[in-house]
Amino acid sequence: MDIGFIGLGSMGHGIAANLVRAGHNVRVWNRSRGPVDELARLGAHGVAAARDAFTGDAVFSMLAADDVVRSVIIDEGLIARGPRGLVHVNLATISVALARELAELHRARGIGYVAAPVFGRPDVAAAGKLHVLAAGDPAAIARVQPLLDTIGQKTWPVGAEPHRANVVKIAGNFMIASAIETMGEAAAMAEGYGVTAAELLDVLTNAVFPAPVYKNYAGIIAAQRYEPAGFKLALGLKDVRLALAAADAVNTPLPFASVLRDNLLEAVAHGDSELDWSAIADVARRHAGHEGRHGSNPAPA
Amino acid sequence: MDIGFIGLGSMGHGIAANLVRAGHNVRVWNRSRGPVDELARLGAHGVAAARDAFTGDAVFSMLAADDVVRSVIIDEGLIARGPRGLVHVNLATISVALARELAELHRARGIGYVAAPVFGRPDVAAAGKLHVLAAGDPAAIARVQPLLDTIGQKTWPVGAEPHRANVVKIAGNFMIASAIETMGEAAAMAEGYGVTAAELLDVLTNAVFPAPVYKNYAGIIAAQRYEPAGFKLALGLKDVRLALAAADAVNTPLPFASVLRDNLLEAVAHGDSELDWSAIADVARRHAGHEGRHGSNPAPA
Amino acid sequence: MDIGFIGLGSMGHGIAANLVRAGHNVRVWNRSRGPVDELARLGAHGVAAARDAFTGDAVFSMLAADDVVRSVIIDEGLIARGPRGLVHVNLATISVALARELAELHRARGIGYVAAPVFGRPDVAAAGKLHVLAAGDPAAIARVQPLLDTIGQKTWPVGAEPHRANVVKIAGNFMIASAIETMGEAAAMAEGYGVTAAELLDVLTNAVFPAPVYKNYAGIIAAQRYEPAGFKLALGLKDVRLALAAADAVNTPLPFASVLRDNLLEAVAHGDSELDWSAIADVARRHAGHEGRHGSNPAPA
Amino acid sequence: MDIGFIGLGSMGHGIAANLVRAGHNVRVWNRSRGPVDELARLGAHGVAAARDAFTGDAVFSMLAADDVVRSVIIDEGLIARGPRGLVHVNLATISVALARELAELHRARGIGYVAAPVFGRPDVAAAGKLHVLAAGDPAAIARVQPLLDTIGQKTWPVGAEPHRANVVKIAGNFMIASAIETMGEAAAMAEGYGVTAAELLDVLTNAVFPAPVYKNYAGIIAAQRYEPAGFKLALGLKDVRLALAAADAVNTPLPFASVLRDNLLEAVAHGDSELDWSAIADVARRHAGHEGRHGSNPAPA
Repeated sequence: MDIGFIGLGSMGHGIAANLVRAGHNVRVWNRSRGPVDELARLGAHGVAAARDAFTGDAVFSMLAADDVVRSVIIDEGLIARGPRGLVHVNLATISVALARELAELHRARGIGYVAAPVFGRPDVAAAGKLHVLAAGDPAAIARVQPLLDTIGQKTWPVGAEPHRANVVKIAGNFMIASAIETMGEAAAMAEGYGVTAAELLDVLTNAVFPAPVYKNYAGIIAAQRYEPAGFKLALGLKDVRLALAAADAVNTPLPFASVLRDNLLEAVAHGDSELDWSAIADVARRHAGHEGRHGSNPAPA
Repeated sequence: MDIGFIGLGSMGHGIAANLVRAGHNVRVWNRSRGPVDELARLGAHGVAAARDAFTGDAVFSMLAADDVVRSVIIDEGLIARGPRGLVHVNLATISVALARELAELHRARGIGYVAAPVFGRPDVAAAGKLHVLAAGDPAAIARVQPLLDTIGQKTWPVGAEPHRANVVKIAGNFMIASAIETMGEAAAMAEGYGVTAAELLDVLTNAVFPAPVYKNYAGIIAAQRYEPAGFKLALGLKDVRLALAAADAVNTPLPFASVLRDNLLEAVAHGDSELDWSAIADVARRHAGHEGRHGSNPAPA
Repeated sequence: MDIGFIGLGSMGHGIAANLVRAGHNVRVWNRSRGPVDELARLGAHGVAAARDAFTGDAVFSMLAADDVVRSVIIDEGLIARGPRGLVHVNLATISVALARELAELHRARGIGYVAAPVFGRPDVAAAGKLHVLAAGDPAAIARVQPLLDTIGQKTWPVGAEPHRANVVKIAGNFMIASAIETMGEAAAMAEGYGVTAAELLDVLTNAVFPAPVYKNYAGIIAAQRYEPAGFKLALGLKDVRLALAAADAVNTPLPFASVLRDNLLEAVAHGDSELDWSAIADVARRHAGHEGRHGSNPAPA
Repeated sequence: MDIGFIGLGSMGHGIAANLVRAGHNVRVWNRSRGPVDELARLGAHGVAAARDAFTGDAVFSMLAADDVVRSVIIDEGLIARGPRGLVHVNLATISVALARELAELHRARGIGYVAAPVFGRPDVAAAGKLHVLAAGDPAAIARVQPLLDTIGQKTWPVGAEPHRANVVKIAGNFMIASAIETMGEAAAMAEGYGVTAAELLDVLTNAVFPAPVYKNYAGIIAAQRYEPAGFKLALGLKDVRLALAAADAVNTPLPFASVLRDNLLEAVAHGDSELDWSAIADVARRHAGHEGRHGSNPAPA
């Protein structure tokens, strides 16, 4: 198929590469040139403007945040001038509000719009093993299904209104963040009794929480190995803000998300924006007087 | 082996039955008579006083809370008059403070003491598939290991000081409660957008959180099926209080546990003590104006 | 002096009336016509467009929220086309971000800009007894000082950068909201012991907190008399959001504000937007199972 | 009158001294000898055992916490052997549960019991300007009223059941702690915009919160002058725990108290137990990355 791809960050790069490898004709665009050249070496066609990627059978976009999506996709007129019949697959984690606005803009122009946010870190994206949520017009989803099968291990259909996929994605990231915070608090408490985070979390993630997401973050937290970041703390804060905003709009208190926001803000205030977001575990430890990344007291033996 | 068993509630019953079935000589005691008679029909020997069970090669106890443990095991003189050489396996979820006090009392009397709190609901106990934490003198643990192998699918050793098992158990229950609250908040938010809890949690517990504990509670929350209780909300509140107390004693804030306590208190105030503790999910929904068990507004379609 | 006045809501009406009574020539504008006619009867001159009020020696504006300020003051070109030398006194409680944007727009056009948010409810405004914060160019403040003296009992200068007044105002409203929530929680606890809110708060607001703001809200909370609203709950939620946004922008966690937001959202979800914002006290009571406005259980005797 | 006085800490000392100066015959006891000798120089009679003070027309006690009250007043048999007709005035801030237990023990022995916790710091106690809550049998209160008039500027009767005074006192201290935390959070936010705590709180405590308790703590917070402690942070944590326990017993969530507990625990974990409890304001600042007592980043200018 003839595919455009907009946004070649750490996630987008791996996804686009898989589409290239699957034999599709992929026109790629990125704000900076380096990633475009890299993809070109794999067989993609670099294009000079985002609008040149916003054509063909389908276009994927994987942009970092609402403001970037707005700037690249809306403000530069891609939708307003896009070809009718194109299907736009938006992989980004964006706000529910923007998701609704995008759905309406595409509908008005006659462009298919599939919200397809994904679960998985960059290595999972590169391996084509993402979990892909998909919401939108069933016919549009059907047309891009082979492509979704290429980038992920499974597609989870969540309805005909695109924003529903964003609701599920935002809820999912909130749940992951809560699991991390929970482990951080539990570790801080256990360390107060001389039980190390490694001892505690090894038992609990095997006996009670045998899910890869728990084991993965438990390992990072136990080793306090927050670099290199699989998912940057600053982006995690962005996603918790998305959860709070989505909930606020339907009058729903999310007390856990408020705790997450506070601890992520504190981490940012202490210079940890570029660390993996699981570094919030060290906020809990620091509050307990243990040696976190910025603390001064040694953790109990 | 010659075994005593004290406390035949819904958990103790299944565990004791497995010990009987494994061919051990089991003397059982319970405050009320019914469960004793039931075990006797399986081949156990009912005894009239707890002290008659606190003898032999090993004695297990599975009592509901600190005050019951104190009343039955300490105040009635079981430890003070217990036979030297006995190993006491305490399966209960008790406070870290009481765990330490018990360890010292047993040590002073020359009785082995193994803290062995378990993970698993009554059906898991009945099936002999519990996860068993074990902390205490390694020699004492070694002597009862065959018995632990009978009641659980796996034993997780967590050190030589008995209270360490209680720290891990309390942390584990806190983590389960946090997972439930997280799902409740996420469901309340999603329902505000017409995404049902079933839709949301089915995707997320398969794609991101494929652990039985998540899937189990997701099903209960989606169906709002809080009866019969697998683990009563009043006991859940007790366990969250244990986490807060354990953390308080080592100057560790647990903001998630504070939220849990508040929502569990609110559930109790509304008459839900006897429901499954996952009914706190309906507190989140009620806060959002959705129809919970006590709400008046219909959830959005 | 020749004065414009934009925005004649319950606060603006009383303030404008005092300026008229003080003998100034006041051109008034409001989106709806009724309040304009009312002021005209007092001697003001109604004008048909906001830009006709944005002239003269000084113009006051008292608009409800950021979006209204943006729409009326910025988008309709008032600043861009306003007369150089005019001083704009913005009485509204707006975001720090918008305050900074406005300061820059006025500066670029050569119009004086004084941020002058006020403390006091409508009856206080009508009596000319407001507390007025004032930040901006000292010369601009000096020119409007006689007018500020007319509308308030005291002006509190808080610096040369206009947004500083908004920071102080937002912090002040956060502090008032926290005081209300505190009284609500304390009352819910005391009621559980048969001590009524009236008994509790009468003692405490006289013995410990003898400030009018405490006594005023204590009376409302004790009587559960949330109508008519002195300050609507929906506006209170807006202001708590302003505090969270201002704090977020400088990486500052505000855990109390998060609790406030959650309880205000819950109140809105239960239909209380139009009540006085002190109705959050009933959220605390409802959580404890007492009869709030939407509860079903009687409060303990 | 013939009066006993038990407990000569910083509060008790000043109160007892006022009773001596008023011409009463005061027998004083304290665990350590120094304060007894000091009072003796003013004219009091030092006694060697607490029971020697627990006689006469009335006995006051001012002990630091539940465990001390239990140890001195209950466990040493003072009530059990106290003279019928004596009135015991308990000035301490104790738990509601212990207050109820004490009321029952005194009633059973025929000793009058007045719960009379006080508001005011040591300098206020020394000046005889305390606010005194009083609950208990009206006849017993009437008998000691002249003494209460000596130690305080005003007595606030709160009912016939002694524990009601403790409920009000606990609620009052919770409200003071909330006011401090509120100022701490507001200051942290304002400092992020270059508005100092002194600038912010000077305006707000004069314009909106003109109560001495606000002005007093605002001054301490602005100057970060937490030594010497007027009320130690460790005692403040004790009192917040009393509020949480009292509320827990009547199924009442107190989310603000949970935040207070967490921040006080964090302060204790960082070694601030002996500072004035308003040092929790620096926890809010430290979370925002500002220079608190233990932080490393300078506050914005």
